[in-house]
Amino acid sequence: MKIQNITEVVIAVDKGEEAVKFFEENLGIKFDIQWQMPNEKMNVKAAQIGNTQLHIVESTSPDGVIGKFIQSKGQGLHHIAFNVTNLNGWVSKLKANGVKLIPEEPIEYTKGWYIFIHPRSAFGVLIELIENK
Amino acid sequence: MKIQNITEVVIAVDKGEEAVKFFEENLGIKFDIQWQMPNEKMNVKAAQIGNTQLHIVESTSPDGVIGKFIQSKGQGLHHIAFNVTNLNGWVSKLKANGVKLIPEEPIEYTKGWYIFIHPRSAFGVLIELIENK
Repeated sequence: MKIQNITEVVIAVDKGEEAVKFFEENLGIKFDIQWQMPNEKMNVKAAQIGNTQLHIVESTSPDGVIGKFIQSKGQGLHHIAFNVTNLNGWVSKLKANGVKLIPEEPIEYTKGWYIFIHPRSAFGVLIELIENK
Repeated sequence: MKIQNITEVVIAVDKGEEAVKFFEENLGIKFDIQWQMPNEKMNVKAAQIGNTQLHIVESTSPDGVIGKFIQSKGQGLHHIAFNVTNLNGWVSKLKANGVKLIPEEPIEYTKGWYIFIHPRSAFGVLIELIENK
């Protein structure tokens, strides 16, 4: 159980296309991966930079999780993700240590499983743990 | 001129030792690099994770740059850094594009040169560009 890599750095913005344009035109970063998450009220554009994906997450509604984050903190860095193996082992250990997780158990998606460490437990940093299938 | 890597992810905290303890005990991340920046009123502890360094930056005074950040935004993600070559070329391009830099010209330190893109220009994200010697 060792963190090998910061696999994602995620930015929350109001207007995804404008942010993508900024990073492409000024820093030459190409966001050629994208998907929509209508239930979560967000759209994601992603760029692969070395071993890390930079995600620009656009809020599509003020009452979504990104919309609420921006209302409270402003646009900017939202969270980081670490790739892990044996996510269930991590979850057991973190719970035993009293670390607050969101949600309580990992969520399965097409490529693997993920869970978040609550920023209240991690000095204001929202941390995602991802296990790939 | 291409961004190859996210070379640093930086977290601002009030108490560096407590934050280090959290990351070491819960995520097995070892912060075995450290230095002090008394003029900037901050102490840094760093962990190498793959190609990226995770920095925990502790405020040593409420009127330092990290102290002010925490007062305004709370503890949490502070900035990300990209490694570049030809930093002066980037600076010229960014200025021509109207991007606000802090300070106006790169600062030299022992290992290279750095400059920041103001978060007002970059959708709330403070971005550091670093060229190594």
